[in-house]
Amino acid sequence: MTSRAPVDFCRRCGTKVEHRLPDDGDTKIRAICPACHTVHYENPLNVVGTVPYMGDKVLLCLRNIEPRKGYWTLPAGFMELDETTGQGAERETDEEAGADITMGPLFSLVNVPHVGQVHLFYLAQLQSTEFKPGWETIEARLFSEADIPWDQIAFRTVKVTLQRYFEDRKRGAFGIHVIDLETPTGPLFPPKPAETSSSTAS
Amino acid sequence: MTSRAPVDFCRRCGTKVEHRLPDDGDTKIRAICPACHTVHYENPLNVVGTVPYMGDKVLLCLRNIEPRKGYWTLPAGFMELDETTGQGAERETDEEAGADITMGPLFSLVNVPHVGQVHLFYLAQLQSTEFKPGWETIEARLFSEADIPWDQIAFRTVKVTLQRYFEDRKRGAFGIHVIDLETPTGPLFPPKPAETSSSTAS
Repeated sequence: MTSRAPVDFCRRCGTKVEHRLPDDGDTKIRAICPACHTVHYENPLNVVGTVPYMGDKVLLCLRNIEPRKGYWTLPAGFMELDETTGQGAERETDEEAGADITMGPLFSLVNVPHVGQVHLFYLAQLQSTEFKPGWETIEARLFSEADIPWDQIAFRTVKVTLQRYFEDRKRGAFGIHVIDLETPTGPLFPPKPAETSSSTAS
Repeated sequence: MTSRAPVDFCRRCGTKVEHRLPDDGDTKIRAICPACHTVHYENPLNVVGTVPYMGDKVLLCLRNIEPRKGYWTLPAGFMELDETTGQGAERETDEEAGADITMGPLFSLVNVPHVGQVHLFYLAQLQSTEFKPGWETIEARLFSEADIPWDQIAFRTVKVTLQRYFEDRKRGAFGIHVIDLETPTGPLFPPKPAETSSSTAS
């Protein structure tokens, strides 16, 4: 979940780019190659993950990498080419938790416009309590709602997803939650104790 | 909805890249700069749009640009930085149809892994039958289900979204549909008459 390098040179021919409006009616400043005329668009990225659950507990991973090393997260990472959102979520759960899961439906879609990301979490039923986390994870552990380390959650998207999960669990019905995270007014890290998210649909 | 140029040169320093495994445990071949060591990840892009409806009709746009110039589509386009999926869908509806809408909930999420895209469509209630389409659209027109030109729909993601819309309308309840489009066995254009999509959740 790192930011990308700025586009200073053309990926196609290596020429230094210009930053200007394209000639095709586009209204946004783009990085454009003056030699081969390639327009270098920059678009949001998807982060895909799961809410792995068993009984009244969910699986969290203690991060072994920056950002937010030493904080807890749901297994998630950048969606890759050649996979669906669900396949990416399943892959990340395997990589970060080594968990045996059965994939369930989409649970949350969280827009994070200030970092150019969309986070998507799927429900996933754990088939075993044996976990084999990869190198990105210090420890994978099951937590009941009362035990969740709310002030040590790595990302706000994970926090709001967990909150919605336990709310839905209490009412006995799981929806799909579309949530917009507003730009934080303070520093993004550490996350603020009070959520500033608003659910636009549920 | 065009494919991107391959990464041959570093966007940061202009050096010719190498294609190899990174040294950080990553298992995928990436474009890596031998000079400044930037790893150039390539990730799927989101296409965001709406199903603009009024009464029993939906709004379609006749495309004035390639690909699929002269075919009908729902208003949609690539999600930009600094916006949410919903804001992007609203922007595209304004740009392509000039339609006055009230945004509704997310309706479909369609994975298109063979082109590295995820398409997201929101319901949108039309507030007027006056449309002012931009230069990308030849004509914006309302269609009832019986009049939809099914064999002249520009993209399969639009076709399956429209199909789900009219199905939900008949049963009187609108869900969120997560659909995986399989790699077409024949040519992608024109779309096959029979859909190969499967709904993984609804």
